[in-house]
Amino acid sequence: MRDYPRQLEILINELSKLPGVGEKSAQRLAFHILDKDEKQVEALADSMLNAKRQLRHCSICGNLTDSDPCKICSDPGRRKDLICVVETPRDVMAMERIRDYNGTYHVLHGVISPMEGIGPEDINLKSLIKRLQTNDCEEVIIATNPTIQGEATAMYISKLLKPAGIKVSRIAHGVPVGSDLEFADEVTLLKSFEGRREL
Amino acid sequence: MRDYPRQLEILINELSKLPGVGEKSAQRLAFHILDKDEKQVEALADSMLNAKRQLRHCSICGNLTDSDPCKICSDPGRRKDLICVVETPRDVMAMERIRDYNGTYHVLHGVISPMEGIGPEDINLKSLIKRLQTNDCEEVIIATNPTIQGEATAMYISKLLKPAGIKVSRIAHGVPVGSDLEFADEVTLLKSFEGRREL
Repeated sequence: MRDYPRQLEILINELSKLPGVGEKSAQRLAFHILDKDEKQVEALADSMLNAKRQLRHCSICGNLTDSDPCKICSDPGRRKDLICVVETPRDVMAMERIRDYNGTYHVLHGVISPMEGIGPEDINLKSLIKRLQTNDCEEVIIATNPTIQGEATAMYISKLLKPAGIKVSRIAHGVPVGSDLEFADEVTLLKSFEGRREL
Repeated sequence: MRDYPRQLEILINELSKLPGVGEKSAQRLAFHILDKDEKQVEALADSMLNAKRQLRHCSICGNLTDSDPCKICSDPGRRKDLICVVETPRDVMAMERIRDYNGTYHVLHGVISPMEGIGPEDINLKSLIKRLQTNDCEEVIIATNPTIQGEATAMYISKLLKPAGIKVSRIAHGVPVGSDLEFADEVTLLKSFEGRREL
């Protein structure tokens, strides 16, 4: 018996399903929500429902969007023959922050991971092949994460596309700018050696 | 330009208003919510709205409840002449966890804090006086937090009730059980000296 009223118990339970939210944090969030005006709680609840109901995956690139095709795919100023392949919509947003890339994206919504039973057919790869068959493409830049699964996925895509004569590249991995060499891990240092360029 | 779809921007903005949730965490939560089924998002949103709409403050003790009077106030097994005064409904739940206290509560929903412009009339104090006038009371136990404001509030209540011949007590503050004396701060140690009891 914790003597929570039922509605509070349900709320804490739902909140504790969020990532990084344990029972204590869920309690704190729940009491914070109860302290707000009903209007503010409605705004929060509506924002969740609206986002979930109105956001779709772009039929071309798979990115999150409220219009189809998405802003980037329908922008005439962006190069359709340059495609950057990423794992998630968050990666698209990270890439967009550099404000320098003027190509388009392709969001895989995952990576190939045999351990978890995720094969090439489980990620958004078919639509990439279709895209490449119907449109001329100069280069596919693979920007999956430098994890085992991300590397395996990059390899798989590269082997799939190269026979078709498509230029496939991988983003560079190395010591991040602003960090200290002595704190870089061995794999990062190895990558930065492998990716060295002549000055 | 962050190129977020509008609904996502609104969702992230709403989530970042939660305590302890910065922009990065709000983004993470937002994408997590978008990855869920619509049913699951509805359950989360509904749990907030239901809790906010159906939970009230008990008209007797001020605790959060879905029925009025609350479970504790309407329990014939709980002593109505023993009242523990706490700051928030969370404190009631903490007290209930000891499973030993069989009196009732009074929730102030705040503490007196002249710095923040919160006076005695801004907290749930009037209803405590009314309670004491209409019912016999053997003891009022003040369990506000051991902060400056909590102590001031305890003092204020004690000075208010003592002339009426009501026994007022304060919970003990000292070295917490299971912790180490050498890590206790000076104020805690002082309190533990002041509160020493003969063995």
